[in-house]
Amino acid sequence: MTLHSLSPDILGALEGAVGRDGLTADTAGMAKYLGDWAGDCRGSALAVLRPGSVADVQALMRLCSELGLGVIPQGGNTGLVSGAIDSKGAGLVVVSLERLNAIRRIDTENFTLQADAGCVLQTIKDASEAQDCLFPLALGAQGSCQIGGNAASNAGGVNVLRYGMARDLILGLEVVLADGELWNGFSGLRKNNSGYDLKQLFVGSEGTLGIITGVEVKLFPKPARIETAYLGLASFEAAVALFNRARRDCSDLISAFEIIGSECIDLAQLIDPGVTAPVSAPVQALVELSSSAAIDLNGMLAGFLADAMEDGLVADAVLATSVAQAKAFWAIREGLVEGQAKRGYHVRTDLSVRISDIPALIERARRFVAHEHSGWISLAYGHAGDGNIHFNVLPPADLGAGEARARGAEITAGLYDIAVNLGGSISAEHGIGRSRSREFWAELSPTHRRMVTALKTALDPKGLMNPGCLLPLTETVP
Amino acid sequence: MTLHSLSPDILGALEGAVGRDGLTADTAGMAKYLGDWAGDCRGSALAVLRPGSVADVQALMRLCSELGLGVIPQGGNTGLVSGAIDSKGAGLVVVSLERLNAIRRIDTENFTLQADAGCVLQTIKDASEAQDCLFPLALGAQGSCQIGGNAASNAGGVNVLRYGMARDLILGLEVVLADGELWNGFSGLRKNNSGYDLKQLFVGSEGTLGIITGVEVKLFPKPARIETAYLGLASFEAAVALFNRARRDCSDLISAFEIIGSECIDLAQLIDPGVTAPVSAPVQALVELSSSAAIDLNGMLAGFLADAMEDGLVADAVLATSVAQAKAFWAIREGLVEGQAKRGYHVRTDLSVRISDIPALIERARRFVAHEHSGWISLAYGHAGDGNIHFNVLPPADLGAGEARARGAEITAGLYDIAVNLGGSISAEHGIGRSRSREFWAELSPTHRRMVTALKTALDPKGLMNPGCLLPLTETVP
Repeated sequence: MTLHSLSPDILGALEGAVGRDGLTADTAGMAKYLGDWAGDCRGSALAVLRPGSVADVQALMRLCSELGLGVIPQGGNTGLVSGAIDSKGAGLVVVSLERLNAIRRIDTENFTLQADAGCVLQTIKDASEAQDCLFPLALGAQGSCQIGGNAASNAGGVNVLRYGMARDLILGLEVVLADGELWNGFSGLRKNNSGYDLKQLFVGSEGTLGIITGVEVKLFPKPARIETAYLGLASFEAAVALFNRARRDCSDLISAFEIIGSECIDLAQLIDPGVTAPVSAPVQALVELSSSAAIDLNGMLAGFLADAMEDGLVADAVLATSVAQAKAFWAIREGLVEGQAKRGYHVRTDLSVRISDIPALIERARRFVAHEHSGWISLAYGHAGDGNIHFNVLPPADLGAGEARARGAEITAGLYDIAVNLGGSISAEHGIGRSRSREFWAELSPTHRRMVTALKTALDPKGLMNPGCLLPLTETVP
Repeated sequence: MTLHSLSPDILGALEGAVGRDGLTADTAGMAKYLGDWAGDCRGSALAVLRPGSVADVQALMRLCSELGLGVIPQGGNTGLVSGAIDSKGAGLVVVSLERLNAIRRIDTENFTLQADAGCVLQTIKDASEAQDCLFPLALGAQGSCQIGGNAASNAGGVNVLRYGMARDLILGLEVVLADGELWNGFSGLRKNNSGYDLKQLFVGSEGTLGIITGVEVKLFPKPARIETAYLGLASFEAAVALFNRARRDCSDLISAFEIIGSECIDLAQLIDPGVTAPVSAPVQALVELSSSAAIDLNGMLAGFLADAMEDGLVADAVLATSVAQAKAFWAIREGLVEGQAKRGYHVRTDLSVRISDIPALIERARRFVAHEHSGWISLAYGHAGDGNIHFNVLPPADLGAGEARARGAEITAGLYDIAVNLGGSISAEHGIGRSRSREFWAELSPTHRRMVTALKTALDPKGLMNPGCLLPLTETVP
């Protein structure tokens, strides 16, 4: 059954659960909750609900469970895979967590922080820094994404190789289940081996098993020293070899190892024409070491790079001599993402393969685009240490929007095939959402599908939590 | 229904599944599978099955599912919580993975290793080291525990603060489900954010959801430099303060931070009378830094300790000047565990609290034992960086075994109460098994219980996987 509108009775009951301020059902008021961050996906909703407390979320879910009304939990809506956007018109209500936005507790002795799900990531990072601590989750959308969404989508970013994904940074969760029950999974403990680790199920579940209302994370000592280098390399093969050597020679102190195809630099310049890469080479890398201890990182990085140059792995290298210069290096990496957004619709992927297969992935993808979609522009950049490549493709400037999207879907499918044939993943960090659910589901073994469905049914027997996200809407399982 | 023996028909069918070499049903042959590592717990089984291939495990589970026969998956049987021992006579068959003991693949470019579940941890550590890599899981039983059991019990150990628990080290699993279906959860990918992370459910599930037949783990560069210090401290408060400072001043290079109450030293001497602590102080600490990079760890550690001494946090410190001296420090830590085993039955716990609550936990526990169980000897040691304390209690030498066990159960209950009242856990790393299932279950909220039961039912609807472990045998849930 797809609802097309809510009766006045139901609207009244929803308002009863979340208060007058918490309900929006008019088109203008709902607009900002129905489009994603990049602006290339829009959806619909019967109403947007903005509960002001955990108890309100519970009341709301009790009501929705009674009514059989499906909900989309929504954080900052920056995930880019339509995880929080009903692009299929399934007749759902959006539950935005944005009013639950307090930091509940920072414990610097135990290096932990508890926050409401709607707390913006940057707020958490700033609050940690004010206590001389680091919350290392770092991604482009950190000024608007919310920690609950980060948990639900198991967010990644540029520091994963040192600190892990959101999953690795989460100590505890608080979740309102589909029937309105509250599960308190906070403990503050570093080590707790007591039965099934239930929080693991919600991390990365993209709102399909419950609504995360609170998150407890690990903090780290704030790095006192950071060294940044921008490198020119002959090839992606050299980049992989260099990363493997860096793992050893720079121990666990590498906090970022980003690789960038030189074609991406033009894009950064779209944002800021003043951006120039400090090296000229077909593949460029941004390497960062950091440490809270008084280690001579500059000497370590310089020595490492000198050796690597001698062995022909690095063609050119510039070590930042000031914070401003390090920022300028990062501006290239950040600018190329913004540059793509400026070009409007484009094919955006988030592939991962074994680290050693990065060169093969990029080579095959480039060849595929050049041979079968001439005029489209391939861009390759990503997180070398995670085997995670954003292989994106820009349409020719003169192509109409409709045609570009149709062709873009074909290109996406081709790129997914290339990743899967290498034993890779079509979603390294953004998740499945609605954009990728068909492809995701098609690849799973029947056994895997049955397990996913069994878990979904166990925790959300009525299928109310984010229907159509991750699991296909129409899926029936024997 | 509790079976007391298997009919010849059923024995024949089981033999058909695992082959003649794979079935043992006589008392003498089964004995070694029915007692735990410490020798203080024994159980029973209808038969012991030792499949020689993953296909055999599947055939076996298909048969057991048809027959409604419950199974206990068994690794090295070193978990110490009766997770793989049917101490309650529930009429089960033991499935030992010991014949599945090959390393399947080491990939040094991607820093990954795949092994059969029955592969002994030490074998994996040695194979990694031979490739100049480190598999960092390190625990007392590493010479006999198996990687499948490590995964199923989410094993901890002395390097958790640097590298995490088994959960953090596992990239993929291969699991035979209760109905005999095989789930292949290997990928070799560092980053794969595609739907529910199913492996997380099996890690720490203690064999209650399926039989792990293969494990894929992360490797690390082998440390080229290791520095070890043995410290004398005035108190556990000082130990916690010192750890927090070490986190900052030694960055992410601390690989162990073990704390030892001085009363434990006598025990190490039971094993080796030549063992002497290099310092004399009420609390002692063993600190290890390690790095694959050429960092002056000796200078870092010496400088850190000099500052800490100046500030009164450290009373005495000895830096190992040779590998032999570092080994002698570790012999104290290892010897005290073996010393306890030599004393026969004793109360053994595995508590965790917030790191800042370690001193309160130990102080309350010591007071409880001294006031209410005079003559019993309290021992406190553990992993400071994880908030994990093994608070063990030895019976008076003249107490009869039966009386010691009865009183020991009371003491255990009292210690659990103390940990729980501090917001802690009764199982930091060993798991729940059968020894702790009643206490574990009693503490859970009704919501948490319902979730655990729903997941168990989703994956093991007939309740065949390790019945009585983790979830109580008799539990019925609305």
